[in-house]
Amino acid sequence: MGGAEVSLEHLYKVFTMPEGKSSKLAQIEQHLSDNLAGFLSQHVVTSVKSLEQIEKNFAEYAVPEQPEFVSQHAANLLDKLVANSVNTYSPTFIGHMTSALPYFHLPLAKLLVGLNQNLVKIETSKAFTPLERQVLGMMHELVYGQSSDFYGTYLHSANHALGAFCSGGTIANVTALWVARNKALPATAQFRGVAYEGFAAGLQHYGYKKMGVLSSKRGHYSLSKSVDLLGLGREQLLTIDCPTQRLSAEKALSVGKQYQNEGNKILAIVGIAGTTETGHVDPLDELADVAQELGCHFHVDAAWGGATLFSRTYGKLLKGIERADSVTLDAHKQMYVPMGAGMVLFKDPNDSNAVRHHANYILRAGSKDLGATTLEGSRNGMAMMVYASLHIFGRQGYELLINQSIEKAKTFARMIQSNPDFELITAPILSLLTYRVNPEALQDKINRMPQLASALNLELDQLNVSIQKQQREAGKSFVSRTRLQTEKYNSQSITVFRVVIANPLTTELDLQNILNEQLTIAHKTKMWQKLCAKHKKAE
Amino acid sequence: MGGAEVSLEHLYKVFTMPEGKSSKLAQIEQHLSDNLAGFLSQHVVTSVKSLEQIEKNFAEYAVPEQPEFVSQHAANLLDKLVANSVNTYSPTFIGHMTSALPYFHLPLAKLLVGLNQNLVKIETSKAFTPLERQVLGMMHELVYGQSSDFYGTYLHSANHALGAFCSGGTIANVTALWVARNKALPATAQFRGVAYEGFAAGLQHYGYKKMGVLSSKRGHYSLSKSVDLLGLGREQLLTIDCPTQRLSAEKALSVGKQYQNEGNKILAIVGIAGTTETGHVDPLDELADVAQELGCHFHVDAAWGGATLFSRTYGKLLKGIERADSVTLDAHKQMYVPMGAGMVLFKDPNDSNAVRHHANYILRAGSKDLGATTLEGSRNGMAMMVYASLHIFGRQGYELLINQSIEKAKTFARMIQSNPDFELITAPILSLLTYRVNPEALQDKINRMPQLASALNLELDQLNVSIQKQQREAGKSFVSRTRLQTEKYNSQSITVFRVVIANPLTTELDLQNILNEQLTIAHKTKMWQKLCAKHKKAE
Repeated sequence: MGGAEVSLEHLYKVFTMPEGKSSKLAQIEQHLSDNLAGFLSQHVVTSVKSLEQIEKNFAEYAVPEQPEFVSQHAANLLDKLVANSVNTYSPTFIGHMTSALPYFHLPLAKLLVGLNQNLVKIETSKAFTPLERQVLGMMHELVYGQSSDFYGTYLHSANHALGAFCSGGTIANVTALWVARNKALPATAQFRGVAYEGFAAGLQHYGYKKMGVLSSKRGHYSLSKSVDLLGLGREQLLTIDCPTQRLSAEKALSVGKQYQNEGNKILAIVGIAGTTETGHVDPLDELADVAQELGCHFHVDAAWGGATLFSRTYGKLLKGIERADSVTLDAHKQMYVPMGAGMVLFKDPNDSNAVRHHANYILRAGSKDLGATTLEGSRNGMAMMVYASLHIFGRQGYELLINQSIEKAKTFARMIQSNPDFELITAPILSLLTYRVNPEALQDKINRMPQLASALNLELDQLNVSIQKQQREAGKSFVSRTRLQTEKYNSQSITVFRVVIANPLTTELDLQNILNEQLTIAHKTKMWQKLCAKHKKAE
Repeated sequence: MGGAEVSLEHLYKVFTMPEGKSSKLAQIEQHLSDNLAGFLSQHVVTSVKSLEQIEKNFAEYAVPEQPEFVSQHAANLLDKLVANSVNTYSPTFIGHMTSALPYFHLPLAKLLVGLNQNLVKIETSKAFTPLERQVLGMMHELVYGQSSDFYGTYLHSANHALGAFCSGGTIANVTALWVARNKALPATAQFRGVAYEGFAAGLQHYGYKKMGVLSSKRGHYSLSKSVDLLGLGREQLLTIDCPTQRLSAEKALSVGKQYQNEGNKILAIVGIAGTTETGHVDPLDELADVAQELGCHFHVDAAWGGATLFSRTYGKLLKGIERADSVTLDAHKQMYVPMGAGMVLFKDPNDSNAVRHHANYILRAGSKDLGATTLEGSRNGMAMMVYASLHIFGRQGYELLINQSIEKAKTFARMIQSNPDFELITAPILSLLTYRVNPEALQDKINRMPQLASALNLELDQLNVSIQKQQREAGKSFVSRTRLQTEKYNSQSITVFRVVIANPLTTELDLQNILNEQLTIAHKTKMWQKLCAKHKKAE
C-alpha cells in the first residue's frame, strides 16, 4: 500500500500529466474504448459473492493517510469494485430500467468532466445554459406541441422556464408538486403566499383543513417522499387501489370530491405514463377532466413512458399528456442517456416563478442563471448527453428503438403464454410485463376451482421468490420481482416476475433462454415437486 | 445535416461499435487524454460572443427528425458548445469554486458510464452500495471521529445511515433540514408525526405558532429554498446581519430566545464553515452551545470548508463542527471531484430514519437499498470518484493542497495590500478573499473624512463593476463580484471583487498579472480619471 510521494510536485503531476499508455488506468480505458461488452464480460463478475462478503472490501472507516499511485488504485478498483458490480449492459439482465448505452456516451463523459461546467449560473456554464434550455424546449415541444411564437418567446426568456433539469424523476416529481403547492396557496392582499408565510398559514388563510395528492397505488414512492417533504404529510397521499393497473378516473373523481367536501383541498392528481411495476398508462385524458372538475393541478409522471412520444404508433397511448400542467421525464431510461438526467416540464412557462429564488452573488434578478428556478444548486452539464442523443438518434431513430422494445415485449408475452407452465399476469402496454411460474396442473385446478386460488397463490409466491433468487444468484440473467394486485385473483397481491425490455441488444433467443432457465430451476425445487405431486394426486 | 440511416442496423452499431480512431469524436478524446490544458486552450474560446449570440446556436425548438452521424455531431459540439463554454481549468479563472480537476477523473468518468450503475438499490449497484457507505463513513470519521466500535456497528447497517450522497450542497442542506423537521415534530401516543400527519398538524399538536431556521445573512440561498420547500416559509429563515462576516453567537441566542418566547420554535441553527462569498467560518463551538440552549438541531454547511479538516494546521478553524447534528460537504469543491458529489452526514446514525421510505418492488424493509433514506431516487455512482480521490491523494495529499491554497490566498492578500490603489476588504480565512480597486487619493480622503465614505462608495461601486465586466469580457482572466456589508463602512453594502484560490495550478505570477490587468483597465476608464481628478483637486 501507499508509496506515492507526499509532495506538491507529485500532486501537480496528478493534475496535469496523463499517465502513460501502458499504465493500468490507460489500459482499462483502452479496453472500454475498443470493446465495452468484452470489458464488462471479462471484469464484471455478475454473481458469486454475497453482499456481506463484498462489504469486507469496504470496511475501513478512516481516510487513508498516504497517497496511492493512480495505477495501483486502478487495479484496486477493478478488483474490489468493478468485479462486484452489476452488468447493466447485459442483454439478459431484463429486470430493471437501466440498460446498455450507446457508445458515444463514453467519450462524451470524458468531455463533460474535461469541461466541468456548473449549470447553476451562466458564469460557469455559458453555452451549456442555452443548450439545456433548448433541450427542455425540444422535450416541451414533443409533449405540448406549442406554436413557433410560443417557443420564440419563452425558450431563452430570463423570466420564464419551460422546465428544469435535475438528477432524476424523484427531484422532478418533487419540483412539480412544489410548484403546484405554491400556486395553490398564492399571495393575496392579506397573505404573502405559502412560499413566504409557510404551509400552516396557507391552509389557514384559504380555509382548508388538509391538502392532498391523488394517485393510484402504482404511483412511484417519490410521491410519498414529496408529500412528506412539502409538509402535506404522507397520509395525504390518497392512493387508489387499481387491480387493472390503471387509475380509474371515476374513482379518482369520487375520492377527490369526498375529500374536498370534507373541507380539504386536492393539490394535484398524478397520472402515470408507464408505471414502474407494469408499464401501464393511466387514462390521462380522463384524468385531465377530473383535475379540471376538482380544480387542481394535473401532473403526469412519465419518467419511464415519456419517450414513447417519439413513436407515431405508440405515442398515442399517452393521449391527454398534453393537458398536464407538469410532466416528469427521465432521459436515463428510454432515451439511453447515462444515469442522472431527469427533467420536469411546465406547460405554462410562468409556473417556475412560483419557486424562484435569488441571491446576491449569483441568480441575480434578470439573469439567466438556471439555479434561480431549480431545486438543485450546482449541477453538471448532463444536458449535453441528452442534446447529443436527440441529434444522433433523431426522432425517427428513437421511434424505431421504442417500437422494437414494445414489439419485443409482445413477442415475449406470446412465448410465456404458449408455455403451459407459465402464467402471464400483465400483458405489455409499453415494454414491461409481469408473469410467474405456475405449473400446468395448478393452473387447471385454479380454473376449475377458483375458490382454491387464494391458498394456492401463497404457495406459488414462495416458489417464484425462490426461482427469482436462484436465477439472480446464478448470474447469467436477471429478472426482478414485485407484488401486484390483479383483477383475476380478486385483488389478492401475488408475487410476479417483472421484466423490462429496454436493451435493444436483447434477442428473442435471450428471452427464450431466460424462460428455459427458470423452468430448469423450478423443476429442481422441492416446492415444484411437492406442488405437482399434491395437485396431480388430488385429481 | 442528416445523412445517417434510419434503420435498426445503424442504431445497433451506435450501441455496440466504437467509432474508429480517425473519427472526430475519437480525435477529441485523444486530445483530452494527451493534453487536457492544450485541448481547452485550443477549443474553449473564453469570451468574444455575447449570450444572445450564443443563444442563436440553440434556437431550434423541435426534436431533429433525422439521425446525425456521431462524427458529424462531434464537430457540431466543438463548434457550438465547447467553443462557447467556460475554461474552468484555467489558472487565471479565480472567480468561482469550480477549478481544475486531476487527470484520473477523465478515464474514471468513462468507466462510470461504462458501468452505469444505479445506486437507488442494491440490485443495480451491488459493490457501489458498500463503497458509497464507506465513503460516507470516512467523511464521518473525519468530522466526528467516533470509535472503531461505532463504525463497526453502523458502517454497513441496513437500519442506519451515516449520511446520504446527493447531487450537491443544496440537496444536502434540504435533506438535513428535512430530517431536523421530522425529528422536531415526532410521533406521540396522540400524533403520528409530521411525516405522516403534515406540518400544520405538527405545529398544532406541539403548540408552536411557527417554526424557524437561524443563520447569518451569509447563509447559502439553498436555506431559503429549504424553508420554502419544507413548508416553514421563507419569512421563517431568520437571517442575522454580520458585518464581520461571522454569525455572532450572542445575537443568535437573543434572536432565538425572543422567537421562542413568542410561541414559536427554532428548528435549527445553521453554522457556515466557509461562506460562499468570503470563506469565513462561523464560531461553530459557540453556536453549538446556543443550539443546546435553544434545544434545536445544529447543522453546519461545510460545502466549501469541510475539506479543510484534512489539514492538521487549518482544520482547527472548524472547531465545534464535531458537535453538529448534521454536516453538508461538497466533494466537487475542495476535494477536486467532478461536479455532482454532495454529501450530508448525520452524527446520529438513527437520524436518517426520520425520512425513511419503503416501496414494494425496491427499498424493501431490511434491504440495504440506499434510496430508502435519500431524497433523490435513481443516482449514479459518483461516490467512486470520491473514493478514488481519497485513495489517490490520501489525507496527507489533501492536506498539502488545502495548505497551499490558503497560503497562496494570504500571499495574494499581501500583494493587494502592498498596492496603494487596491483595498483589501476581507482577508482570507480559508482560501477566499475580497477586495476592490480604490485609488490611493480616495483612500486617503476617506481616511481623513470618513463622513464622505458613503457617497464615495457609490462611485467606487460603479468603477469596480465596470472593471470586473471588462476583465471578464477580455477573456484572459476572471474574478467574480458580489456586494458585502462591512464593519469598516458601518454596514454599508459595497461592491467587491471575489476571489477563490482553489486551482493548485494558479501561480503567484498569475495573481500579479490579474492585479496588473485590473489597474490597466481601471486607468482607461473615464470614471477613474474623473475620480482621481476630482479628489486630487479637492485637496
